[in-house]
Amino acid sequence: MKELILDILIRGGMILTISKDKDIIEKGDVGIRDGKIVFVNDSKSHHTVSMAKETIDARGSLVMPGLVNTHTHLPMICFRGLADDLPLTEWLTNHIFPAEAAFVNREFCRAGARLAIAEMILSGTTTFCDAYFYPGSIAHAAIESGMRGVVCAGFTDFPAPGNPDPSKNMDIAQAFIDRWQAASPLITPALFCHAPYTCSPATYQDIKEVARRSNTLFMTHLSETQEEVSDIKERYGNTPLLHLHALGILDEHTVAVHCNWLDEEELTIMADYDTKVSHNPESSMKLAAGIASIPEMLAQGITVGLGTDGCASNNDLDLMQEMGAAARLHKVAALDPTVMDAQTVVEMATIGGAKVLGLETIVGCIEPGKKADIILLDLNQPHLTPLYNPYSQVVYAASGSDVSTVIIDGKVIMKDRTIRTMDIAAAMETVRDISRHIADSGGAPRRYP
Amino acid sequence: MKELILDILIRGGMILTISKDKDIIEKGDVGIRDGKIVFVNDSKSHHTVSMAKETIDARGSLVMPGLVNTHTHLPMICFRGLADDLPLTEWLTNHIFPAEAAFVNREFCRAGARLAIAEMILSGTTTFCDAYFYPGSIAHAAIESGMRGVVCAGFTDFPAPGNPDPSKNMDIAQAFIDRWQAASPLITPALFCHAPYTCSPATYQDIKEVARRSNTLFMTHLSETQEEVSDIKERYGNTPLLHLHALGILDEHTVAVHCNWLDEEELTIMADYDTKVSHNPESSMKLAAGIASIPEMLAQGITVGLGTDGCASNNDLDLMQEMGAAARLHKVAALDPTVMDAQTVVEMATIGGAKVLGLETIVGCIEPGKKADIILLDLNQPHLTPLYNPYSQVVYAASGSDVSTVIIDGKVIMKDRTIRTMDIAAAMETVRDISRHIADSGGAPRRYP
Repeated sequence: MKELILDILIRGGMILTISKDKDIIEKGDVGIRDGKIVFVNDSKSHHTVSMAKETIDARGSLVMPGLVNTHTHLPMICFRGLADDLPLTEWLTNHIFPAEAAFVNREFCRAGARLAIAEMILSGTTTFCDAYFYPGSIAHAAIESGMRGVVCAGFTDFPAPGNPDPSKNMDIAQAFIDRWQAASPLITPALFCHAPYTCSPATYQDIKEVARRSNTLFMTHLSETQEEVSDIKERYGNTPLLHLHALGILDEHTVAVHCNWLDEEELTIMADYDTKVSHNPESSMKLAAGIASIPEMLAQGITVGLGTDGCASNNDLDLMQEMGAAARLHKVAALDPTVMDAQTVVEMATIGGAKVLGLETIVGCIEPGKKADIILLDLNQPHLTPLYNPYSQVVYAASGSDVSTVIIDGKVIMKDRTIRTMDIAAAMETVRDISRHIADSGGAPRRYP
Repeated sequence: MKELILDILIRGGMILTISKDKDIIEKGDVGIRDGKIVFVNDSKSHHTVSMAKETIDARGSLVMPGLVNTHTHLPMICFRGLADDLPLTEWLTNHIFPAEAAFVNREFCRAGARLAIAEMILSGTTTFCDAYFYPGSIAHAAIESGMRGVVCAGFTDFPAPGNPDPSKNMDIAQAFIDRWQAASPLITPALFCHAPYTCSPATYQDIKEVARRSNTLFMTHLSETQEEVSDIKERYGNTPLLHLHALGILDEHTVAVHCNWLDEEELTIMADYDTKVSHNPESSMKLAAGIASIPEMLAQGITVGLGTDGCASNNDLDLMQEMGAAARLHKVAALDPTVMDAQTVVEMATIGGAKVLGLETIVGCIEPGKKADIILLDLNQPHLTPLYNPYSQVVYAASGSDVSTVIIDGKVIMKDRTIRTMDIAAAMETVRDISRHIADSGGAPRRYP
């Protein structure tokens, strides 16, 4: 047998494979070549002798699949902390929408996405799904930094930054898909209708039609608040979910984000159509939007992934902390400590998210043939000691800063918390300049409350 | 005027004073001598020329009061992740109580406390309040590491590790107070009755009597779960709070921990007696115990501090994350994004906690005359960029690992994330040895679920 020359060998770590067969390997090695995982060995039974261009010493580390953030608005990082603790309508109408109208342009989006990607890498995310303006700039920022992204072009009925004429929505959607469908192995283009209260039935049907004929993912915010539900009922005589159902939008390539106010009948429809859910607990908690019935969704067999939402409503992009919030929130909401156990939540943040984004054949677990999207957590720290159960440790004790090393598409993007693909100081300074401009323009009236 | 020679000068940081007068100083200096804060200057109006034995460059840092953890069980760090996601009774009866009976001794408590104190320092806590067995070992661990602690001796009706004869509870309580009342400026002794379901009326009255005559703090778990409420109603014909009220336990030196199931009448009584509350949101979420009515308590004028609880139910000691959980949980529980705004939560974790513990004259804010318990957060990081509102940043975006420097009682305990007073590697190894012993003895049946 020809000797195997690896690009990367991860050696001697505890491996949380999230694969159905292997579960946890207490001490093992992972071989990576040409962007893919070529073997996952238990050190006890295998003596790995492969040569590698780069060997990563994983002793004392937890090796796990990179995290999948199924919903965010990356450039909103420029609004982090701009206007918190306000009534939802005041927040959106008096702060976020005006700030977007005044400041969002292509450079804003590229600079924001760059910093947001740095934050995600530093906290263990290896795949994101974004929906914002100027999606091409998001895709470019991802490619530059070696990050995997599902990048949505977003649509409403109204003129928006980068999209002044909503009558051309279908053309823009198709052109975006055509531009990015084969442009980079890191980028998957997709389409996003903002919400039932900003998109007419025609907009939903048009954009979903482009998605269907292009075989791409379709996303939308759905049933985020009680106000949305009553508003849509009043306008269309249906709940938001039933409204989309009536429009023929639901299928297995549709992802509904938030879903805080679905009843049992609606969950059954979601399950019947295999429509996916992106659950963003920290954002829905902070906005007081509601608590999604995630344990009931899982019981119905609905596929759920985790997301952070944007930094205006979270205010961070740390999926490690999102796992903790998800696990704890549903326990207390159900008054049942057995729901959302740690393993379920880790799966939701990895393979679950991959399934939501239609990427489960390429990422979400550590097994041969999958793309090498892998992170290492440094377990040798007081707050991660002792270790009885790695799932518990990840969900209830770890945070993003415990991620030491990030590999995406078989490339070492971060090692020992240094990102190799980006000048972080410059990325921060660019966003600071933008924030000073916003503050100086009166866009941040409550700088220090 | 004689030249001021400082022990420590913190220079050029943004200061979150939490004092009523000064609020936020965008760029300022803090002078420290003989354990106390001697000045807090705005760099714009003052030119600080003092000499200092150690100068800390705080440019790019947020300078704020050290955090106050009002409730924990430090040695339970040895059980972190031992048995999660289980029904509460199974967790306590089949896992935690047997593990405590089998493994807890003086050395377990000292080793656990030492590691727990490391974790707290690394995440910005400068004062803790502990309740566990062998409280003397907790006090010793705190003094060794330079940490400030309110250390409770704990009591129930049953024999317990270190306290085999409950008939001697009063003597033991008095002896503990006498031993520690003046032993160290870092240690405040206090007394703790575990809960209404483990302590008889006589135990409560005896221990509270010792507390009253010694002028010390008295703590108890209270109204944690619905089961506790029905159990106490059945036994005594009263809710837990009314039961303690009838026993004469309530006053301004009593702290009730959890308080997840108090009704309006009970809140009014708490407020009337100025009884304090320790709120532990992450623990109560994870155990599915319930959601305390914190916004209502604050509206009634009840003093509330934050706590992590022990690592068996949290599973960490990170008050930074606890702030985020508290702010988010109550918003979604009330469906009102304006409750528990960021400033309120930061105050709860600092001066609020100090008030709960009766230490508000010495710690909890940055102002001249107070003890120098101060932490620095490194703001120069992607997840803390940009910065519009430091309160928002601390509550919604920061985590414990952002704390770079910790000063307690005027001594630099941690600098650039290196703890000066402790061998962390040794502290971790000792607890790992304990955990291996627990696991080998079958105490951790679900090591990898």
